[in-house]
Amino acid sequence: MQVPYLVDLIASLVFAISGALAAYGKLLYKDIFGVAFTAFITATGGGTLRDIILGVHPLTWVADGNYLIAIFSGVLLTIFFKGYIKKIPKTLFLLDTIGVALYTILGVQKSLAHDVNPIAAVILGMVSAVFGGVLRDTLLNEIPLIFKKEIYATACIAGAFLFVLLNYYGADRNFNFFASIALIIIIRVIAVRYKIALPKLEE
Amino acid sequence: MQVPYLVDLIASLVFAISGALAAYGKLLYKDIFGVAFTAFITATGGGTLRDIILGVHPLTWVADGNYLIAIFSGVLLTIFFKGYIKKIPKTLFLLDTIGVALYTILGVQKSLAHDVNPIAAVILGMVSAVFGGVLRDTLLNEIPLIFKKEIYATACIAGAFLFVLLNYYGADRNFNFFASIALIIIIRVIAVRYKIALPKLEE
Amino acid sequence: MQVPYLVDLIASLVFAISGALAAYGKLLYKDIFGVAFTAFITATGGGTLRDIILGVHPLTWVADGNYLIAIFSGVLLTIFFKGYIKKIPKTLFLLDTIGVALYTILGVQKSLAHDVNPIAAVILGMVSAVFGGVLRDTLLNEIPLIFKKEIYATACIAGAFLFVLLNYYGADRNFNFFASIALIIIIRVIAVRYKIALPKLEE
Repeated sequence: MQVPYLVDLIASLVFAISGALAAYGKLLYKDIFGVAFTAFITATGGGTLRDIILGVHPLTWVADGNYLIAIFSGVLLTIFFKGYIKKIPKTLFLLDTIGVALYTILGVQKSLAHDVNPIAAVILGMVSAVFGGVLRDTLLNEIPLIFKKEIYATACIAGAFLFVLLNYYGADRNFNFFASIALIIIIRVIAVRYKIALPKLEE
Repeated sequence: MQVPYLVDLIASLVFAISGALAAYGKLLYKDIFGVAFTAFITATGGGTLRDIILGVHPLTWVADGNYLIAIFSGVLLTIFFKGYIKKIPKTLFLLDTIGVALYTILGVQKSLAHDVNPIAAVILGMVSAVFGGVLRDTLLNEIPLIFKKEIYATACIAGAFLFVLLNYYGADRNFNFFASIALIIIIRVIAVRYKIALPKLEE
Repeated sequence: MQVPYLVDLIASLVFAISGALAAYGKLLYKDIFGVAFTAFITATGGGTLRDIILGVHPLTWVADGNYLIAIFSGVLLTIFFKGYIKKIPKTLFLLDTIGVALYTILGVQKSLAHDVNPIAAVILGMVSAVFGGVLRDTLLNEIPLIFKKEIYATACIAGAFLFVLLNYYGADRNFNFFASIALIIIIRVIAVRYKIALPKLEE
């Protein structure tokens, strides 16, 4: 299943908005550079690490300027419509969740296409989706979101695992693609809605 | 325009001094390892990330030990002449600014030579110059300098943009090289001299 | 000298245990994801950075799932036998020291096999061994262990340097391998036993 190019660009734009909003909340001095740099790191970090680990060149955003235009559009949208965007947190959460799910499965597909072992493909799918956020939080000197209580990266792992499994058993690629993305979205929505966390390990 | 090899080595040495001085200010326990490691990260971080993103191998400092000797010389200079170096902050600032400007334009040139889209070339030029400092600050658990008030990375972006633009319109390479470097230095010097910052974005 | 495959896997498992134990001490919310992710970063970080810098693909853990199984075994061992593991700190310290020594010299060998200059080979050997811990500490928002007082990375540098030197003078490869590893272990054990640190640099 080839994801429409436009969907991929929109996912970058959504990640950029989430990065830009985080910059507003965390940067001491908020100028356009700080906000844009944070958005850029958030949107490109995961895919960049995945491709560097896979040794795939050129990287998407290096070869195709449209991704950078999408990211910068997300930055401008945030700066000019921040008030409005903050009023639709559920929409934003849903867009972000769809983006995370999409990046995960695209990451798994790309990894499997490069002869990666199945467990590494699951890890690289998760990394594609969450590492931009990890970089964002680390640069801003925060404990990364993925280490907090709410189920987040674990949903990506579950979806990536499902994809690898169905792929192994020869499931229809389109069905597999949508089923795995749906699983990530469902787990994430339920976890946030009912405040479900992984059990805390005993001390 | 081929930058004289010696100039490139001196830029590494200057970055190493700036890294070593930062280590003196921030490390809890200052031994030669901590100071040298910080200097090494500061001097090599930007070029390393750029080359890894471009997929260019071998990396400069991996292939050519002279860069490492230059860096280690910077470390020793800092350790033995720290008192003197601190007395010439303007000279150090100017050397650092020249180094940053040089790294930016060298980074843009290398990126364009690898068929990178123009916006990505601007970003990679800026990354070449500032990412060593970002790594230094992140490792030392500080908010990166580039996120602070003073114009810094933005000057690199402006110079990189000028280079890409003049290059597109077929300007003389030597003229373009010096004009872009000059722009970065001028913006940076004026910004520091008159305490100019990018406008703060509204909350 | 070809290190037995099993020894390499055990080293990954030991690093994973050290990462998982660190997660127990530092993570605010300790679920299996946080512990496993920290263990994974600790065990793979150094070798991943080395191979990315060298441009060597595929990475070990990407090509061979057994490393990931070893890491996950270390995570499960930590979760289920943490009480017991904490009672044998000396054994754990010794295993960790052997792992660090092994990774250093394996890293130097791999670097030299890729035509790296001798100083860079020493640095890359040290990086192979300590960078996983640096990433672990940075992600957990701590000052990296290598910047603390105790001799740690310096022992790796000493062993790596010995290996490069003996290699240059054509020493027997097996002898060189064991002598260099022994040097690292001895320096580290003595440093911890007698609380030896590098001299503090003057302010």
